[in-house]
This record gives sequence, C-alpha cells and structure tokens, in this order.
Amino acid sequence: MPYAKSLWYVAAWSHDLKADQPLAVQILGEPIVLWRDQRGRMAALEDRCVHRLAPLSLGRCEGGKLRCMYHGLLYDPSGTVTEIPGQDVIPPHAKVRPYPVVDRHSWIWVWMGEAGAADETLIPPAVGLDDPNFILGSGQLDYAAEARLINDNLLDFSHLSYVHANSFGAGEEWARERPTVTQLPLGVRVERWIIMQPGKPGRSYAQPVEHYASYDFLLPGILLMSGGEFSLGTKDQLDGKPPNLDLAIGGVTFTSQAVTPLTAKTSRYFFSWGPHRKFGDAALRDALMAIAGKAFAEDRTIIEAQQRVIDATPEPRIMPTSADRAITLFNQLSAKRLRAEEESVAEVRAG
Amino acid sequence: MPYAKSLWYVAAWSHDLKADQPLAVQILGEPIVLWRDQRGRMAALEDRCVHRLAPLSLGRCEGGKLRCMYHGLLYDPSGTVTEIPGQDVIPPHAKVRPYPVVDRHSWIWVWMGEAGAADETLIPPAVGLDDPNFILGSGQLDYAAEARLINDNLLDFSHLSYVHANSFGAGEEWARERPTVTQLPLGVRVERWIIMQPGKPGRSYAQPVEHYASYDFLLPGILLMSGGEFSLGTKDQLDGKPPNLDLAIGGVTFTSQAVTPLTAKTSRYFFSWGPHRKFGDAALRDALMAIAGKAFAEDRTIIEAQQRVIDATPEPRIMPTSADRAITLFNQLSAKRLRAEEESVAEVRAG
Amino acid sequence: MPYAKSLWYVAAWSHDLKADQPLAVQILGEPIVLWRDQRGRMAALEDRCVHRLAPLSLGRCEGGKLRCMYHGLLYDPSGTVTEIPGQDVIPPHAKVRPYPVVDRHSWIWVWMGEAGAADETLIPPAVGLDDPNFILGSGQLDYAAEARLINDNLLDFSHLSYVHANSFGAGEEWARERPTVTQLPLGVRVERWIIMQPGKPGRSYAQPVEHYASYDFLLPGILLMSGGEFSLGTKDQLDGKPPNLDLAIGGVTFTSQAVTPLTAKTSRYFFSWGPHRKFGDAALRDALMAIAGKAFAEDRTIIEAQQRVIDATPEPRIMPTSADRAITLFNQLSAKRLRAEEESVAEVRAG
Repeated sequence: MPYAKSLWYVAAWSHDLKADQPLAVQILGEPIVLWRDQRGRMAALEDRCVHRLAPLSLGRCEGGKLRCMYHGLLYDPSGTVTEIPGQDVIPPHAKVRPYPVVDRHSWIWVWMGEAGAADETLIPPAVGLDDPNFILGSGQLDYAAEARLINDNLLDFSHLSYVHANSFGAGEEWARERPTVTQLPLGVRVERWIIMQPGKPGRSYAQPVEHYASYDFLLPGILLMSGGEFSLGTKDQLDGKPPNLDLAIGGVTFTSQAVTPLTAKTSRYFFSWGPHRKFGDAALRDALMAIAGKAFAEDRTIIEAQQRVIDATPEPRIMPTSADRAITLFNQLSAKRLRAEEESVAEVRAG
Repeated sequence: MPYAKSLWYVAAWSHDLKADQPLAVQILGEPIVLWRDQRGRMAALEDRCVHRLAPLSLGRCEGGKLRCMYHGLLYDPSGTVTEIPGQDVIPPHAKVRPYPVVDRHSWIWVWMGEAGAADETLIPPAVGLDDPNFILGSGQLDYAAEARLINDNLLDFSHLSYVHANSFGAGEEWARERPTVTQLPLGVRVERWIIMQPGKPGRSYAQPVEHYASYDFLLPGILLMSGGEFSLGTKDQLDGKPPNLDLAIGGVTFTSQAVTPLTAKTSRYFFSWGPHRKFGDAALRDALMAIAGKAFAEDRTIIEAQQRVIDATPEPRIMPTSADRAITLFNQLSAKRLRAEEESVAEVRAG
Repeated sequence: MPYAKSLWYVAAWSHDLKADQPLAVQILGEPIVLWRDQRGRMAALEDRCVHRLAPLSLGRCEGGKLRCMYHGLLYDPSGTVTEIPGQDVIPPHAKVRPYPVVDRHSWIWVWMGEAGAADETLIPPAVGLDDPNFILGSGQLDYAAEARLINDNLLDFSHLSYVHANSFGAGEEWARERPTVTQLPLGVRVERWIIMQPGKPGRSYAQPVEHYASYDFLLPGILLMSGGEFSLGTKDQLDGKPPNLDLAIGGVTFTSQAVTPLTAKTSRYFFSWGPHRKFGDAALRDALMAIAGKAFAEDRTIIEAQQRVIDATPEPRIMPTSADRAITLFNQLSAKRLRAEEESVAEVRAG
C-alpha cells in the first residue's frame, strides 16, 4: 500500500472506545483490536490469536487483559500470552504485535511503524471535541475507495463549485481562483480569500464579505482548517499575511478531518466541525453538521464512482491541472517519506 | 472479449436517452456516456474524465456540451475539453474517445470500432416502436451471463419445448423438428413451419394451423423475427419458398431483439414484440408482452445457471447436437470477423 | 482441496431428497444432482449437461430418468444420455459422471472417489432419525468457512468454556482438563469425565454428577457422540474403562454430526441430537435442539471470523496447544489418506 507506516493514523473516535469493550479496527490492511480498562489504560494489538487465528476483538476484557473467546488464551496489553487454559508452559513466542496507541484530541491514534520509533510529537494538532473555544459536532463515513483519492479531494477545493454547488452553496470562484499553497515539513498549507455573497447558509450579512479559509493537510491525511469572514478590503490590507481570526466579523469555525486507509481500496473518514464560541452556538454547529453530512455524501458519491472507473481502466493515468498544485506537493512528500521508510527497512535487512 | 468491435451495438432504448440527462452505459467493458441536447444532437464519449478519471456520466449538460461535475472540465461532443476552470491553457491531449452513435429503429446504436470505419448501412433493419405496421411493446433485461450464451439460446429454438413449455406453450415439435438454416452475409436465417394445435395463448382457431416463423440473427447479436399462421397445407404448396405474410390467417407479429455484451460476463437484452395491425391490437400486444416477460425470465434462469456451471468447470467443453447448426454458423461468422479485425489491427501496427 | 476423495460424504438429509425432485448439491467443489424415483431408486450425477453445460438439477424427472430442461437431453441413472430430441444418433461419449450414492442413517452419502472403489462398509455408523433408542431432532447450517476449521472446532471441546459459556452452560473445566484421545483406524476417539454442577439446562440433580462424554470423529468429518450422567465416584471405579450407559442416572443422549466441504471455503454442517428414550422425551429433544441451535450459531460466528482473519493473513500459521492433540492426530490421518490417494493416482497415471 502506498502509505508510509511510521505515522499516527486515526483509528477511532475516542468516545467509541468504551471501557472493557474490545473494538476491531483495520489500518493499512492490518487487523487491530483496541481496548481500554476501567481505569482508562489502553492497548492496541494485532487482532489475531497466535493459537488458531481467531480475532481477539471477539474476546472478553478481564482486568486490563484480553481473553480470546475461542479457546481462552489470555493476553496482556503488550501482546504477550499470560495464560493458556489447561496448559502450564507458555511458549516464549506466544505473543502478538502491540501497536503504540494514544488518545488525544478526541481521536485514538495508532502508530503503524516500528514501535520503538513512535514519536508523539508527530501527532497533528487536531482540535478535540472538548476544546474550550469551539463548539464541535463529529461524525465518520466509510468509503469504498482508496484513501489517496479522498486526500486528493481534500487538497483541491476547486471541486466545491461542482460537487457541492447545492450543499455548501459554493460559487464558481472556488474553481476559478487558485489558493496560496505552501509546503510544510509534514504537509501543505492551503490559503484562500473568497468574496462571499450574502444569503448562504450560516451567514447573515447584507453585503458581500471576504471569506478567509486556511488549512493544513498533514501526513498521513489530516486536515485542520479554520477561517472567518472579514469586511471587504481586508485581504488587500494584509498584503499576503494571514488575518487575525479574533478580528473576524463572523463565520469563524474549525474542522478537523482524518482519512484512514482501512485496506488498499477502503477508507474511513473522520470529521468534526463547528463554530468558535464567539461566533456561534450549538444550533449553528448542528446546522453546519447537517450541511457537512450532505456535502460529504456528495464527495463519497463522486469519489467512489471515480474509484470504479479507475479500477475498470487498464492503465489509469491522470492529467493534472493547475488546481492540483497542493495534491502534487503532498503526494511527493508522501512518496518521499514512503521511499525513505523502505530504504531504511532495506538497510536494516542488509545489516 | 470474443466479440468484433467494428459493429453497431445497441446501447439503450431511444426513449431512455432524455435531453440533457447523461446516460451511463457499458459496451464490451468500455464505459460510455451518452447524451443529447435539447435539439436532439447526440454524443457518445468515453465515460472517464482526462483529469482524474471521474465518470462524465455524473456530469451536467450545458448547451450541447457536458461538464464533469468533479472539477468542472467541459467537453464538446467530439470529446475535446473546451474549458478547464481557472486555467487558460488546455493541453492538446485533453480529449476522450468519441464513439459514432446513431438513433435508429428506436434504439441508440454505438459503433465500437475505429470511428473512421463506422458504416451506418451495417445497422440491422430492426423495426422501431413507431413502425406504422406493428403495434409494439418494449422491454429490457440484464443478465449475469456472457452475451454469447444468450446468442446461442436465440439461435436454437429447440429450447422452447423445455424452457418455455409453460410460457410460450411450445410443444415438443420445436425440439423434434429442425428448421431451415441459411447463411447470410452478416448472420443466419432460421425458418420453421410448425403445426400448432388450437387453444394456445393468442390463438383462437378451432383446428390446427401451420405456423411459419422466420428470423434473421445478425451480428453482433440482433434477432429480427416475423411469421404468421396459415391453413394446413400451405407449407407444402410453397415448396420451400417463404409465405406471403399478407395472406396469413392470423398471428402475424414482429419482434426485434438485441443482445449487448456489457462486460465479459454481463449482458443487456433489449426486446420489442407485438402484432401487425391487421392481426391484433394494443390488448394483444400487452398479452404477448406478458408472455414474453415470463418466457425471458425463464431464459435468464437457465442461462445464468449455465454460466455458473461453466465458471465452475475447469475446461468447459460443449457437445454440439444437430440442433446447433445455426449456432455453429453464427459463431464461425463471428469468430471470422473478430479474426479479420485482429489481423487488420496487427497490420496497422506492423505498418 | 485438502480432503481425500475416496470417502463417503454426507450430501443431504434423506428426507430432503423427495421423489422426482432433483436436488442440487456441491461436494468438494463438484456440482452434483441427486434424485430418486417413485420407487425410491436413487442416482447421483455430475450436475452438468454434456451438451451446453446447463445444470441437470433444473431438469425434470421422467420415470427413473432425468431430462435436461434446456434442450431436452435425457439421462439414465448411470449418467448415459438415452435421448437427444430431434437426433437419431447419440454419440458414445454423451455421458456424465455417476457417483455411488447410499441412503443410510437418514443421510444421503456420496462417494467422491473412483466409483469402483466405493466401499459401503466405510460409511460411519451414524444414528438415524428412525433409531428405536433415541428421540432425535435434526438440522443443518451453512458456513462461509472451510470444513477443516469446523472439524478442528469439533475435535477440541476446550472451546465450550468460552464459545458456549451461555448456550451449553459449559464451565471452565472443559478447557482446563484434557480428554483421553485414542487413535482409531479412520479417526479418533475423545473421552471425557466432567464434574457437572446442578442447575444447567436439561439436568435436575440436587448435587453434582459425573458426566461422561465420548465421541468418535471419523473421516471425512463425522462426529458420533454419546454419554450420560453418573453419580460421583463412578469414574474412579471404572479405572479408565468406559461406563455402561444403561447404568447412567440420566442425561443419555446421542448426536450425529457431519461436516461436508461444499467448496474450498464453504461447508455444510448436518446434525441430529436427542435423548435416549429411557432418559427423555420429545420435549427434552426440542429443548436440546433449541440449545444446539444457539450453540452452533456461536460456533459459526467464531469460525467464520477465524476464516476471515486467515484469509487476510499472508502466511497464516497456528501455534498448537496441548488441547490440540485430537486435532493433530485427525489431521495427520487425513493428510496421510490424501497423500496415499494422490500417490495411487500418480501410479495409475505412470501405469
């Protein structure tokens, strides 16, 4: 799969991992069981009993341990078998792979690379549901499409004018005008100023405003976006510098989004969205989430259809346009990281 | 796929292609989008945007053009991109393959070979729904089976005695007696005289009659059949010549049928049927279509089952019987045409 | 497929094979049609017409023969075509493979090896539904899993403590204590004494009893189990010898179970269960079958999940435990038989 492993992938919403209830997830094609005990201690293990390969996610939490409910082998959080019913000796190789796992920003993050290399500073600064500044709703959506296609979609908002003409009410300016794209160490930043006409959902100005939207799209596939509305002329005054969102006249929201490859051709998309407390309330959050629900279904329709066409095409080739700059930069970064990872593995093997 | 491309395939019923509503079809595994504008001008293009391979059939008709609704590329009926939103220069290779397309006899025909070789005189003389002589009903049916198996079925009516004993009420004479089979330049002609007993659906004679049925089965898989009922002794008087249907005592109908390979293992079957005005009315048409609905479902049941057996058989081999003569002739013709086409392609490549 | 062919496989419940109603089954991936005539004479043939490979199981019984309902070829019970409608000469190779078939112990058994080697003495001594001693219920269940995994499950009852904690009410002793395993010429025998606490379904003792359970698991995958309850101390008195079930104080039942590989990854599981007349009635049989229905669904859940994990694992490897002894013995026996069969085929070919 064309994704680097030495990164933190979002496995689940934190609130979906309940105490003593094992949760089966899949990341990069690897089956993983997550669980946490009553005191909140978490574990992530290869979801495959060493005995006869039954999934541990059908197991039972016992204290901080997990028992396979086929023939009763008991695992501790490190993946080591600590009990085989009816057998005194436990073979030393009776263990499954543990994955580093962190609960942060309301998401459960799993490190898919070498456990020793796990680096928590690489977890992107998403905004959790308990953030004091934003009033956020959350959701998730499964795709019958590869994660790369969803990343591509999120990296090029020119699709808003067509895919989301009805939901986000995006005009043609989203496709006509090119954003400022900046390379970041672990992703790209995409910034836009759009003149917005009055009368669109969630806005209540009598005259046009300038809408600023900026997002970082970070490895492996995390979108963190904020922005707000300003009076006409603000952009020119700033001379290329980003505005101070505290000075916005309205529309300040935050959205965190994560694209996780489940398998080569399936993905899970996690998202939150909502207004800054100064600029909205729970009712606005719900209105935004309703729009997002419609819009993300539109994305899924076109992306899954795109996937089917790609799969039916012997040698699929794309023809980039000038709207693809952020996609190209991100995919180069991603490919470079994957290549470095493969070379490092090859070196280790060559010893 | 074992089908020649330089032929006209039925893509859809003409009435299913509505103005400004793109229609996705598949022929020989190739995804194609059809559309027509308000003035009726049609186009058929490869259903795959050059940019990121989204299907154009999810697009929007604009005048006579089609806009991809992912990032907004605009196509003219020749498959050329005429607009890329936000980009001035359009690369010269920004085009998709156009297919010759004709609306005739109530069907949309698509030429799957080289566009320059498209020859409208090769469109089989099906009878359209607006024909002044016949009162026709229409329908279509999708198969999880390869088109060849449906062709084979239509080329050998000995199956009527078994598959359609209950629907068409066919007796054993359909299996016992062999029709006259004649090779045509682009297909085969199959003629039969059957003694029909009274009391079958759509017939109201007190005594047996002679039923004449003749069909041409033409490349790529078009069945055009007519016939009628005559008093006993007619066949012998004619001495092998076909009867004049104007002199029939009843039962003159026409059916046009088309088998289109969607993919290697799926097909679409289009059909019309109904009486000549002199021999029936809309009520008889509806009665015939109800019988056809039942009968064609019987065909599909046995053919899809046959396909499953073939797929589960390592080296499937058939054992032809004397009832297979028309099948053999048609398949030889089809194979010969395919071979000629492949040789011609090879020559062009060897250039 | 890793299963020897020269064995009797259960194809169906006898009561599901009704006179003049062809029944399609699949064994070891081979499609087979079973039928019997009004006088009870049975046949089992390759389910594939020689003509165009339509399934004969969609055919019509005529006297003791079976007519293909595509183009009417008629087969006798030996698989020979005896009629081709409209054709005088029947080619000598117009025949399909017949399978030896026996109706015994309420099951239809099919011999999948060379017909000449079929040996009815190899049919395992299952207990039929008409047995005078037992009051039996019956059922069957289809699995999306290979037969081997179901065999493994049945050969190691340590899973009872976990998979069936709620249905059979099995305690941890089933996992903690190891049974006596004895090699048989065509299988293994597994014997257990378990101390059973009062209050479990189907038992009504005020104090603990000793439960004896013994089953033979025979090639290709037939489980025949009986047992009963005895007062405490019985086991020690017997000094390793099996108890006389006539002397049981209760709980004497019999279950016959058969696992048939339909294809490489699908199976059918047949089962009967019920009390000895001396120890129960139809009401107890129904209570036991209700428990079995719940328990066998639990087995299917874990085994199908196990299959999915195995399929998603590049090089699946198991780690046997001491509970696996019967599995290991049976699988060795099975592999040895398969190897012998392959060598014998190779010898015949080398001639």
